[in-house]
Amino acid sequence: MIYITRRERFNAAHRLFRPDYSDEKNMEVFGKCSNPNWHGHNYQLFVTVKGNLNDETGFLINLKTLSKVIREKVIAKVDHKNINLEVDFMKGKLASTENLAIAIWNELEDSVKNLNATLHCVKVTESENNYVEYFGDK
Amino acid sequence: MIYITRRERFNAAHRLFRPDYSDEKNMEVFGKCSNPNWHGHNYQLFVTVKGNLNDETGFLINLKTLSKVIREKVIAKVDHKNINLEVDFMKGKLASTENLAIAIWNELEDSVKNLNATLHCVKVTESENNYVEYFGDK
Amino acid sequence: MIYITRRERFNAAHRLFRPDYSDEKNMEVFGKCSNPNWHGHNYQLFVTVKGNLNDETGFLINLKTLSKVIREKVIAKVDHKNINLEVDFMKGKLASTENLAIAIWNELEDSVKNLNATLHCVKVTESENNYVEYFGDK
Amino acid sequence: MIYITRRERFNAAHRLFRPDYSDEKNMEVFGKCSNPNWHGHNYQLFVTVKGNLNDETGFLINLKTLSKVIREKVIAKVDHKNINLEVDFMKGKLASTENLAIAIWNELEDSVKNLNATLHCVKVTESENNYVEYFGDK
Amino acid sequence: MIYITRRERFNAAHRLFRPDYSDEKNMEVFGKCSNPNWHGHNYQLFVTVKGNLNDETGFLINLKTLSKVIREKVIAKVDHKNINLEVDFMKGKLASTENLAIAIWNELEDSVKNLNATLHCVKVTESENNYVEYFGDK
Amino acid sequence: MIYITRRERFNAAHRLFRPDYSDEKNMEVFGKCSNPNWHGHNYQLFVTVKGNLNDETGFLINLKTLSKVIREKVIAKVDHKNINLEVDFMKGKLASTENLAIAIWNELEDSVKNLNATLHCVKVTESENNYVEYFGDK
Repeated sequence: MIYITRRERFNAAHRLFRPDYSDEKNMEVFGKCSNPNWHGHNYQLFVTVKGNLNDETGFLINLKTLSKVIREKVIAKVDHKNINLEVDFMKGKLASTENLAIAIWNELEDSVKNLNATLHCVKVTESENNYVEYFGDK
Repeated sequence: MIYITRRERFNAAHRLFRPDYSDEKNMEVFGKCSNPNWHGHNYQLFVTVKGNLNDETGFLINLKTLSKVIREKVIAKVDHKNINLEVDFMKGKLASTENLAIAIWNELEDSVKNLNATLHCVKVTESENNYVEYFGDK
Repeated sequence: MIYITRRERFNAAHRLFRPDYSDEKNMEVFGKCSNPNWHGHNYQLFVTVKGNLNDETGFLINLKTLSKVIREKVIAKVDHKNINLEVDFMKGKLASTENLAIAIWNELEDSVKNLNATLHCVKVTESENNYVEYFGDK
Repeated sequence: MIYITRRERFNAAHRLFRPDYSDEKNMEVFGKCSNPNWHGHNYQLFVTVKGNLNDETGFLINLKTLSKVIREKVIAKVDHKNINLEVDFMKGKLASTENLAIAIWNELEDSVKNLNATLHCVKVTESENNYVEYFGDK
Repeated sequence: MIYITRRERFNAAHRLFRPDYSDEKNMEVFGKCSNPNWHGHNYQLFVTVKGNLNDETGFLINLKTLSKVIREKVIAKVDHKNINLEVDFMKGKLASTENLAIAIWNELEDSVKNLNATLHCVKVTESENNYVEYFGDK
Repeated sequence: MIYITRRERFNAAHRLFRPDYSDEKNMEVFGKCSNPNWHGHNYQLFVTVKGNLNDETGFLINLKTLSKVIREKVIAKVDHKNINLEVDFMKGKLASTENLAIAIWNELEDSVKNLNATLHCVKVTESENNYVEYFGDK
């Protein structure tokens, strides 16, 4: 079993808030992250897949293919977008880094399986001080 | 003459566009950066000041004071904000990194003078691949 | 189960030595790290907690609260301090990165439980080439 | 149980290809990485070992000793070398990052055991966007 | 006058040597960098251009255009290549970082002029410890 | 004219204070940096030299030689040391980053001249947020 990780990046706007909360309550729970005019981040996405080496290629997986899948399934939908308003796989969800990591996992899990590998970890860094990791529903 | 640099960070949303352009024209000139629903960045701000050493303190300038000035004059106004809609010193300007660097220079120049130093450079990094530097009007 | 990590930083002096060793023996075992006049580091502390998402907030844990806990329980005690002489939770221990990571775990474990999460990992980086991880007593 | 990681670096040339493939087939499978005139990388190697603290030293392992072992067993053989042509432990293997990580594991496993610790992970980063991790044959 | 910098990256093999030196002399002058079987690096290229703001766009220069020029004129020729054997603008030159920076300047100077800006600096980093800057022939 | 930069690192303890100040006054002026029990940093030192290319070697200067000079003249004296107590070139000076940069310049200037190059800049980073640059007495 070997693990390989690909980093991709995206820039997006978002806002943490609940529509059923008052502005005051949103500010109390989410602080400045609830600014109604949005703010944004340079997100980094680290996708780790695992599996057995293909003896013919010496690869677990062709990283170009993995990168292409991540860019089609995720980056194309979130890069230079508003996560709350424009990202189909985040519809109806709070735009937290936690929910983002889980939703990205769900976007990628089957595609990675089709590449004969297993998705191991989705890591999303929101800033140099914060990151979230999701290893699937277990 | 010695140079000292302080880094501060802020997260903000923005959009590149001209209200007098059509949506098509904005897309043509500014690409995905013109997304009407905004996108955002983790900006890094590097402020370099220069001057002579204070022999008593061994400092050019007290970095805590410089940091406080930058946070009051700049960070408090841009962090977790929408640069196009909410930042007084960017009103009426295109929200490009170039304009941001120049506007931050103008916000800081006099305050640095009051600390007995001279503002030398404002550097704004928008991503790991892009940054702008402004050395004043010369 | 989701994992979230917060980075905090501190600058401290320390020295590796045993009072029951001679100076020669300390130098032999600990090398230049045993310098009696101390040396120091910019330490980075990564605290990873795990648990279930709070569906109402979309958070595992409020990162501002986690950051506040880390700063009160750890950073306030070690930042700009001498680890050997001034840090209560390192009293009587060798000031190695290993012992520091374990002691920080012990400082944080209960407080993280009070936030309805579980401490997963304490990682301390001493330099760009060295770091220690502790996952608790298991 | 505690985990400690040492980073070492090496610069090397390599090429991904199979001698039993035609040039066209190599290009199809390995892309520009199969360039017959080689290309190269600044590799980073992170070696993580685990074990119990030595109460006398406060160490899991003396990092200087671990660094010396990594440099003798691995870095001296790959730094400023051609991985395909000059590295004994890569003879007859495709020069992929995956194979490199596994071969480095095999070079280090016994030496780490002799230091009274257990090799936990060999991580090789090929670029800022790609890395491989190997945790042994399990 | 404002300055903007774009970073691009390339991976390449090279070797420092003079064909008119003996192997011993090459080893004496260039050390392990003269390995006849090549070694390689992840190079980073920082291109800084300067000029006046375009008031209509808020840009000095469109960074996408600058990136495209750098990729066509430089990256396409050096990425995953052997600098000594395959790079037209390095033919007959010692493959040092200094010569590389100067040659890249010459590749880019006119193209930047055509974008209504002035090339200010070409910076090439060979490792995390070494970089070269060239500001043109002055 | 070409510029080349070498990075070296050192870990040291220090304290900002004046012996002619009371403890209260030291705390007022220097804050927690005046802790009598010291604190410390992972310093990074960037030494930039300039000059003309040696056409025979393609170098401005042999970086191994430059590194050796920096390590002998500076790193050997400050690494794992107490800057206030043990560093000859800092005797009687406030241990500020500014004074450190100037003193390192004075240590290196002649040695760089002996290598047929000119010292251009000494940059000392004390943390990821602060650095000082000195370009000599001009």
